[in-house]
Amino acid sequence: MPYSFINDYSEGCHHEVLKALIKTNYEQSEGYGLDRYSLEAAEMLKKEMKRDDVMIHFLCGGTQANLVVIGHTLRPYEAIIACDTGHINTHESGSIEMTGHKIIPVLNDDGKLNVAKIEAALAKNPDEHTVKAGMVYLSNSTETGSVYNKAELTAISAFCKEKGLLLFVDGARIGNAMMSEGNDLWLEDYARLCDAFYIGGTKNGALFGEAVVLCNPCLFNDFRHSLKQHGAMLAKGRVAAIQFWALFKDGIYYANAKRANELAQMIAEALNECRIEMAMASKTNQIFPILPQELVDHLAEKYDLGIWEKIDERFSVYRIVTSWATEEEKVHSLIKDIKEFYGV
Amino acid sequence: MPYSFINDYSEGCHHEVLKALIKTNYEQSEGYGLDRYSLEAAEMLKKEMKRDDVMIHFLCGGTQANLVVIGHTLRPYEAIIACDTGHINTHESGSIEMTGHKIIPVLNDDGKLNVAKIEAALAKNPDEHTVKAGMVYLSNSTETGSVYNKAELTAISAFCKEKGLLLFVDGARIGNAMMSEGNDLWLEDYARLCDAFYIGGTKNGALFGEAVVLCNPCLFNDFRHSLKQHGAMLAKGRVAAIQFWALFKDGIYYANAKRANELAQMIAEALNECRIEMAMASKTNQIFPILPQELVDHLAEKYDLGIWEKIDERFSVYRIVTSWATEEEKVHSLIKDIKEFYGV
Amino acid sequence: MPYSFINDYSEGCHHEVLKALIKTNYEQSEGYGLDRYSLEAAEMLKKEMKRDDVMIHFLCGGTQANLVVIGHTLRPYEAIIACDTGHINTHESGSIEMTGHKIIPVLNDDGKLNVAKIEAALAKNPDEHTVKAGMVYLSNSTETGSVYNKAELTAISAFCKEKGLLLFVDGARIGNAMMSEGNDLWLEDYARLCDAFYIGGTKNGALFGEAVVLCNPCLFNDFRHSLKQHGAMLAKGRVAAIQFWALFKDGIYYANAKRANELAQMIAEALNECRIEMAMASKTNQIFPILPQELVDHLAEKYDLGIWEKIDERFSVYRIVTSWATEEEKVHSLIKDIKEFYGV
Amino acid sequence: MPYSFINDYSEGCHHEVLKALIKTNYEQSEGYGLDRYSLEAAEMLKKEMKRDDVMIHFLCGGTQANLVVIGHTLRPYEAIIACDTGHINTHESGSIEMTGHKIIPVLNDDGKLNVAKIEAALAKNPDEHTVKAGMVYLSNSTETGSVYNKAELTAISAFCKEKGLLLFVDGARIGNAMMSEGNDLWLEDYARLCDAFYIGGTKNGALFGEAVVLCNPCLFNDFRHSLKQHGAMLAKGRVAAIQFWALFKDGIYYANAKRANELAQMIAEALNECRIEMAMASKTNQIFPILPQELVDHLAEKYDLGIWEKIDERFSVYRIVTSWATEEEKVHSLIKDIKEFYGV
Repeated sequence: MPYSFINDYSEGCHHEVLKALIKTNYEQSEGYGLDRYSLEAAEMLKKEMKRDDVMIHFLCGGTQANLVVIGHTLRPYEAIIACDTGHINTHESGSIEMTGHKIIPVLNDDGKLNVAKIEAALAKNPDEHTVKAGMVYLSNSTETGSVYNKAELTAISAFCKEKGLLLFVDGARIGNAMMSEGNDLWLEDYARLCDAFYIGGTKNGALFGEAVVLCNPCLFNDFRHSLKQHGAMLAKGRVAAIQFWALFKDGIYYANAKRANELAQMIAEALNECRIEMAMASKTNQIFPILPQELVDHLAEKYDLGIWEKIDERFSVYRIVTSWATEEEKVHSLIKDIKEFYGV
Repeated sequence: MPYSFINDYSEGCHHEVLKALIKTNYEQSEGYGLDRYSLEAAEMLKKEMKRDDVMIHFLCGGTQANLVVIGHTLRPYEAIIACDTGHINTHESGSIEMTGHKIIPVLNDDGKLNVAKIEAALAKNPDEHTVKAGMVYLSNSTETGSVYNKAELTAISAFCKEKGLLLFVDGARIGNAMMSEGNDLWLEDYARLCDAFYIGGTKNGALFGEAVVLCNPCLFNDFRHSLKQHGAMLAKGRVAAIQFWALFKDGIYYANAKRANELAQMIAEALNECRIEMAMASKTNQIFPILPQELVDHLAEKYDLGIWEKIDERFSVYRIVTSWATEEEKVHSLIKDIKEFYGV
Repeated sequence: MPYSFINDYSEGCHHEVLKALIKTNYEQSEGYGLDRYSLEAAEMLKKEMKRDDVMIHFLCGGTQANLVVIGHTLRPYEAIIACDTGHINTHESGSIEMTGHKIIPVLNDDGKLNVAKIEAALAKNPDEHTVKAGMVYLSNSTETGSVYNKAELTAISAFCKEKGLLLFVDGARIGNAMMSEGNDLWLEDYARLCDAFYIGGTKNGALFGEAVVLCNPCLFNDFRHSLKQHGAMLAKGRVAAIQFWALFKDGIYYANAKRANELAQMIAEALNECRIEMAMASKTNQIFPILPQELVDHLAEKYDLGIWEKIDERFSVYRIVTSWATEEEKVHSLIKDIKEFYGV
Repeated sequence: MPYSFINDYSEGCHHEVLKALIKTNYEQSEGYGLDRYSLEAAEMLKKEMKRDDVMIHFLCGGTQANLVVIGHTLRPYEAIIACDTGHINTHESGSIEMTGHKIIPVLNDDGKLNVAKIEAALAKNPDEHTVKAGMVYLSNSTETGSVYNKAELTAISAFCKEKGLLLFVDGARIGNAMMSEGNDLWLEDYARLCDAFYIGGTKNGALFGEAVVLCNPCLFNDFRHSLKQHGAMLAKGRVAAIQFWALFKDGIYYANAKRANELAQMIAEALNECRIEMAMASKTNQIFPILPQELVDHLAEKYDLGIWEKIDERFSVYRIVTSWATEEEKVHSLIKDIKEFYGV
């Protein structure tokens, strides 16, 4: 069977996560996220962001996290500004609209928002015949592997505050953003700059789970009602929490993301040596090379690569993804095979 | 710390479930429930109900299963008939209404619906000024521990077919129903009599997970869209499926439920010997004794019991729940302590 | 054709309403309720309730008014407490649930809520597994013709304030309540005691139209967004406003309701003389006599009466409704025919 | 006060509409659209489209018509393809999203969809991670005054049928489309090509009202439930129906639209003579000239023109709208003033 570089959720979980689940398995605990593991994991994350005034809940997945936070927060007629390439706009099957809210899509070429784009989106929605923008959504790292830096997020945050917009960061791959070269945005920055964000577990070593961090106290009230109402409150809430506890207690979360980034960048470098262009620049664990069909065919028996977008008969953009679980030797082997193909 | 008889989801999962998760942890698999574990677990369950024409999906929890199935199925103006004590009407934070649908609550004294009650609910909703009933919801075992038999469910099913109502059974504790004394309703019967039902994992040995079974082909189309839209599609879908695979491959699911029922019934018997009355009759793993405050105070140091409903200053209804994980010696000890208190 | 006592919306509108529409027909005005007629009618109503700090919008109908106000106000997980006989719970086709909110139905025998009933409803919904009550809904006059007095509404209002519940009064027949014998609740009282209420036009002399009064400034923000979003903002908003202007400028609104009540009470008195019992006591324009089938058959050629509820083979509760448009001679003729039938 | 060319809903209604309302005012009729006027107006419209197998309902306004039809028709996870300039996407305050459905916006430069654009929208939404397109929405005439011809609508209709998409036409200005020069699309064509459409009254001589025509029998079931649920069913349903009866009995509907178009085109011609360019080509009652600020300032005392979009400091696109009620002498006067300004 070919080795998969399709995504970062092909395997189960990091062995320390598994160990923690095994160790706590027969203990009795309270249900619905009121157990001591949920409290301890929340405390651990709060320390990580040097804050004790945020509220943390452990959810099952990214789409769920997005729809619960947005649905909980917005008034019925409010909309959310996002990149047209944003995950909520393209890959969540209309879940935000299901909660009643329009996404105001912003055209972009690097997967990122900025103040000018948000301002233009506001200008197009001025009165009661249009929607009222209530929130700005962005992902870091983005759906196309790009990364916001501190200056960029600070500018967006300041503009949002000025305009009365809430800022929500989808952190399904926040680890990869933090571990990307040159990063200057850490959990404490997110906690300061955002009204809400989440720390993705599913793509960075957990079986499942996203840690939603509410930073703006206006969102605290009744959040557990929203969780329950959306079917997002696990009876055994501890199962999500314990995983975060295991990932953060010794920095595994960061190590996992670092490793994933490095492996992808190694492949990127090799592709570069073979003069293969990237469709989108990325410093994270997803890279988007423009590959000729004959190379893909050549690799197909040994490796699964995901097509991102067909360009023409000969070329397509592919997405190659690495993770905490990617086997290093498979990366080396892939690199070797590519280089051989090009005689480099 | 007192030993908890509060619910059947205090512990992690059955050791065979854990073993299966460990064993498969580093295998790569497709995402979003398209992996081979999800397919195999579905096949296994189909065999269990001697049907290959049903569709099975693995979800995270009961509230999620209820809202996804109901939201997927009903037209916007359709309503669902349920006991006023039904889980969707009392303990899911308005999740069904969040999907836009009214619950038509039916008064009852044993947690159960019957044809006459459904007929009366229809009669009260005759035209476009009222809602249109589109579905009937019931739980087995019910929220108060009672159980439907085959004759009862067959009558309801026939009536629903006649009236164009879909029938949906919440099986969060379907194992306890199947293993209750005198039961004559098995998975194959549910598959034949219902349009949809689910097999609860969370309360019977899984970390989490409910296996939704769609029996009526009209519900098949685009169900995965509904899953995704509600944030109910795990990226690592296999995690839910593997648990069901482990629970059903050697009958552990049935054994777990049988054990849970037996332990609860042992306590019930002891209470009976002490002439303590039950508020609701139950043959399953939840019992509802009317306990005097002094007994509860006496037991409090060693056991956690959940209050169900206060009756007066001296008496309250308590809910005592056992599970696959309940330690038998704790049950014996509880029985002994109760009997000693009463000098029996 | 038989003369209809079926409801209070069988005819068009009061002649002064028609006159006002004719007079202003060719004037140009701004759209969407920003015209001077909308402003003037709002001013007139504000004077009527001696308040200039309320906000008034003119909507098309009662169901629309209910769903827009409730949908605008509640958080997604909040519910509304209402009589189980309340219009929103029985005759609006699940429109409140469509906006995502559960109605907590309260059993009653006179169509009315009181503090004890609301308190009990709260007690049954204590935490995040249940819904969170956010609002109390009542109608005056009620669906069964009964009327709240000032002491009753004051007690409910005080309790709601204490508990953080908003109070919303459905005034589809508020005119009939105000003009009922012994009434001590006037528009200024509603404006003081409620967070929102509406003054019904449809059933009291308008072609259509309900004047929604927002009293609590927390509800003001973006209400026009909610109007527009629900399709409840007429392009020619003036058409609704002009009708209220015509109804209130010389007290026609009160006169219409007074006349409707008096005609119904005349019939009630006659029925009483014939020893016909009422199913529900009413001092307003709807009466609910228990009529024998032979009387109904006898009257059928000349009068249309609406059946409310069948009691047995011989008797049914009927609803007889009068309005601003009911012809007095038809009332006299009905009374005469009933008395003749009984030889009174 | 300046004379308004801001929109086509500044005045009340056509005198024949008023006459019909006056004439029928005191007749008793059934409520909720079941009266004989509603039936007769529906029959009249059916004859107009030479069909007796369509279903017609009279609603209050365009936003309401759009949200009720779309909300009634789509499954929860289905989306609707529309121009990004479409009314539902830009001027209805997120009402479609409120019903839970995503709009898939299609970029365009003439306000119109075509098969290639719809096909591209489908290609971007292929699976359960994206939404499922269920319907295509277009307006005729469009929001920018352009018009579809029969070949165009036929091609779209055929493609929709092939792909299992429903086709819904917003006919808020369908009269203007039908009366535009060279039109070859009539009501019978819409009834044949669409699954649903509506005939706009508000902008063509009625006080309010849109006649929704359901052509696909799959949409018939329970439509009155949807009407009621959305607060879109007038108690005095006849009031909307009578207006359509008056507009169609002697062809006033067509005459009104023809007149509106002609007056706008007269202004367009004059602007053309003055070498003023149009931002968008239009053969209907809305024209979009690019006007210099000094001309607008010059005209401001006597005429109200609506700004559509600012281009730069000197120029903006304006929207000039005429209607059934526009005074011809005002048009002549406007033309004269513009020509004088330019010395033409």
